[in-house]
Amino acid sequence: MFFSHFSYIMTGMSILKKISHLMATSLKTSTNIEEIKQILLPNQNQSRRNYDIQYYTQTLDHFDFRNESTFQQRYLIDARHWNGADKRGPIFLYCGNEGDIEWFAANSGFLWDIAPDFGALILFPEHRYYGESMPYGSGKAAYKDASSLASLTSEQALADFATLVIDLKKNLSAEASPVVLFGGSYGGMLAAWFRIKYPHIAIGAVAASAPILQFEDIVPTDTFYRIVSSDFKRESTSCFNYIRESWDAIDNIAAQNGGLHNLSTKFHMCRDLQGAWELEDWLSSAYSYLAMVDYPFASDFLMPLPAYPIREVCQAIDGLPDGSHVLSRIFAGASVYYNYTGNVDCFQPDDSGNIDLGTSGWNWQACTEMVMPMSSDPDNSMFQPFSWDLKSYDQFCMENYGVKPRPYWITSEYGGKNIKAVLKNSASNIVFSNGLLDPWSGGGVLEDISSSIVALVVPEGAHHLDLRAATESDPNWLVQQRAMEIRYISKWLAEVYRDKKQTTKFLDEVPRLYAPLQSAQ
Amino acid sequence: MFFSHFSYIMTGMSILKKISHLMATSLKTSTNIEEIKQILLPNQNQSRRNYDIQYYTQTLDHFDFRNESTFQQRYLIDARHWNGADKRGPIFLYCGNEGDIEWFAANSGFLWDIAPDFGALILFPEHRYYGESMPYGSGKAAYKDASSLASLTSEQALADFATLVIDLKKNLSAEASPVVLFGGSYGGMLAAWFRIKYPHIAIGAVAASAPILQFEDIVPTDTFYRIVSSDFKRESTSCFNYIRESWDAIDNIAAQNGGLHNLSTKFHMCRDLQGAWELEDWLSSAYSYLAMVDYPFASDFLMPLPAYPIREVCQAIDGLPDGSHVLSRIFAGASVYYNYTGNVDCFQPDDSGNIDLGTSGWNWQACTEMVMPMSSDPDNSMFQPFSWDLKSYDQFCMENYGVKPRPYWITSEYGGKNIKAVLKNSASNIVFSNGLLDPWSGGGVLEDISSSIVALVVPEGAHHLDLRAATESDPNWLVQQRAMEIRYISKWLAEVYRDKKQTTKFLDEVPRLYAPLQSAQ
Repeated sequence: MFFSHFSYIMTGMSILKKISHLMATSLKTSTNIEEIKQILLPNQNQSRRNYDIQYYTQTLDHFDFRNESTFQQRYLIDARHWNGADKRGPIFLYCGNEGDIEWFAANSGFLWDIAPDFGALILFPEHRYYGESMPYGSGKAAYKDASSLASLTSEQALADFATLVIDLKKNLSAEASPVVLFGGSYGGMLAAWFRIKYPHIAIGAVAASAPILQFEDIVPTDTFYRIVSSDFKRESTSCFNYIRESWDAIDNIAAQNGGLHNLSTKFHMCRDLQGAWELEDWLSSAYSYLAMVDYPFASDFLMPLPAYPIREVCQAIDGLPDGSHVLSRIFAGASVYYNYTGNVDCFQPDDSGNIDLGTSGWNWQACTEMVMPMSSDPDNSMFQPFSWDLKSYDQFCMENYGVKPRPYWITSEYGGKNIKAVLKNSASNIVFSNGLLDPWSGGGVLEDISSSIVALVVPEGAHHLDLRAATESDPNWLVQQRAMEIRYISKWLAEVYRDKKQTTKFLDEVPRLYAPLQSAQ
Repeated sequence: MFFSHFSYIMTGMSILKKISHLMATSLKTSTNIEEIKQILLPNQNQSRRNYDIQYYTQTLDHFDFRNESTFQQRYLIDARHWNGADKRGPIFLYCGNEGDIEWFAANSGFLWDIAPDFGALILFPEHRYYGESMPYGSGKAAYKDASSLASLTSEQALADFATLVIDLKKNLSAEASPVVLFGGSYGGMLAAWFRIKYPHIAIGAVAASAPILQFEDIVPTDTFYRIVSSDFKRESTSCFNYIRESWDAIDNIAAQNGGLHNLSTKFHMCRDLQGAWELEDWLSSAYSYLAMVDYPFASDFLMPLPAYPIREVCQAIDGLPDGSHVLSRIFAGASVYYNYTGNVDCFQPDDSGNIDLGTSGWNWQACTEMVMPMSSDPDNSMFQPFSWDLKSYDQFCMENYGVKPRPYWITSEYGGKNIKAVLKNSASNIVFSNGLLDPWSGGGVLEDISSSIVALVVPEGAHHLDLRAATESDPNWLVQQRAMEIRYISKWLAEVYRDKKQTTKFLDEVPRLYAPLQSAQ
């Protein structure tokens, strides 16, 4: 009984950790940008993705006028392809999300792929409290406590983007240059919200894999894990079933004398597990990340992985001889994710997310406004069942950050309920792109809202695949999805230039490059 | 030289005072609501405008998640005419502005005039830091210093309206009831901004006399005083000229030995003036207020005044015999404004605005985000010439509140520049009503932006006259303006109900009452 109660509490905590992992770590800083570039751009001139690094003196608190504190917000800028202020060359602004902005730039080659044809300036402002954009002079000082973290909110981040781009345009005498927003995941949410809340600053937004509906009661709480599970099931029902059975097997062994040590050995852990939950977290994270990056080609977004990695994982799980122990199968599957290169000697049970709760910005955000209710429903999930438990969530946040989450705030501030009726006449020019393999797609906008707020849904896509640089091996549907985005961006820009009676160069040029893609659909 | 420098500084300060007066005092609390009602509703059943007073436990800081403090936000609610939740009866929400909410209710009879026909619930939430809605338990504590005033911002006020109405709808099981916004002056700005920023909460807004363009460099800084001056000139060029000459006359007398005492006597002041500026402020305020309330019928909005009060003032100024001293004329004119009843024995030179700088919420707002640049240009103004002087403004705010104004913030946060191009596709359902006699109309939206964001401009109208209760003496153009507003509200509601396939009662009923008015235009 004691154990079960403990496990219950830990489940409450581990859910939050999972959510945090999935949003934050999926976007964690990679130290090896050049290596990623090599993978992403085998056939492109690598000097093409280039930028200057600049710093902007940013207001720390946009909503408290007493506070005159500032911090240095980092931004990346590439004006090499820009048509210039005189021609009202557009500005492509990527809404930096929860991580180092250089890593997002490295994984958003789409902007560089298309900027030359649009004559666009590329701008990547970093999100406050991530990367180098630390208030109070250092990450340590910024993450000291609830007081120093207080201005880490999405509202402040949007106001940062607004003030930065307004000032930048002033300095470039480019007030008439239209701004187009881009963003993936949380960055996609910011892009969509920015377009809705600040229509005077940006003319449109490409919001990739943006789960703006993953709040309150808009989508069922079991959506995320249902989709991960279904990604596995579509590859192999037996794989799905092995995973579903594995949790009890783990719990049973862990409950035996020396069981944790045996589990640690079986799973090649570098140290003994602290509990079954630690192994379960390590595995659950792997499955969730695999669903997010279930790309049709080899990638190194989170881990070095083969094309269609879930297929590979399931082949490993299913491939063992009949009679093999379920946990042998599970280990074989996990090894595809955690050790595809084969170079890992042993595993760190807490390295899947690389989350340090003391310094994780996303955990703070999840404990304040970004409350995304999650559950695992035994009817459609291969994960351990658990319910959405706001009380444990609250407790975790109070203990770790001394704050009480506001689970109704995001829907109050940004909306989301009844979104079709709400936005059809009161917003415009947003592309919501989603891949249905991506577990975040369940909280995304999957239907057109109007002729100018559209959903680009690709059944075979995963987490904001479309923002990545084009590769030779891109499947047709991905090329088409990007071509549609280019079309919408062209349309938004054409409306602006037409208003201004400007004959534009890009309308001729874009088709030159993309006509084959457009005609392909 | 010393005097002129002093005067210059005082002008800097007095401009801010003037701006603050005009926005804040025009909306100050009246202690005699019943008397106002008597004037506004001679032929209507007075029990009709009735409400319950309720209090909502409101979050003090919506943007700082550490802060769990709350305060009691007062709101007025009248559900007597409501169609109820089952029929999705609409909610008419007046965006409370800088004053006691009961006073706004008393001066917004339009909502009560039309609510029965729409089956609407009437809701008047009070703006934080005004009336009884004081954080920290009392007005004194709320206005103690910059720290206690920190959460007095328009962003917090909008978030208050959002959370209050969401919760109220939940409690009434009225989530499906559409919300229509109303507001006048700063309240009109809030209504428009709320519709733009929170389209998921309200389906449309009637923004009366809302100077959302009176910021940064969107309209010329001399707009306000140019319009006041032109209101006088259109009644009488000589009147305009007398006023224009009067400032030098005042300065000359004030510069003489005993001159201030003589001026004080001549203007029936209860005490000696502290400087020429004090008399000049007293007169300037009167002229500005007169322009705002230059209504076609007798009113008691700010002062008891006759119909077309500027005409009366100019008749008093012009009416003195040839050879009369210019200041005798000015005194005769001022007496129409300050002593129309004839009951005043002597005047308090500082009573025009009733502003206590230590407790004035609007001054705090003007010293933080609500920076409205103003000037008086000798070419088109009867006022003393002065330039927009941000430096003096800053100095005033730093000395009085310890804050530095952010003059570019409102346009960054809410927009305003290039408003037609910006809003035509990214917002909808806003009526901007303005009367051209109102000096605030110069910062208003005077042209249609789209088929659903429209400008209702009446040349003979003054400051949000349309929100006042109907009277028998309403001129045709006013009746037509209100009829148009009713039409748009009907249209917004019809769109909602049509979406929901609901046959509505109000579409039949509204024409019953307003058909004669609509056919009149």
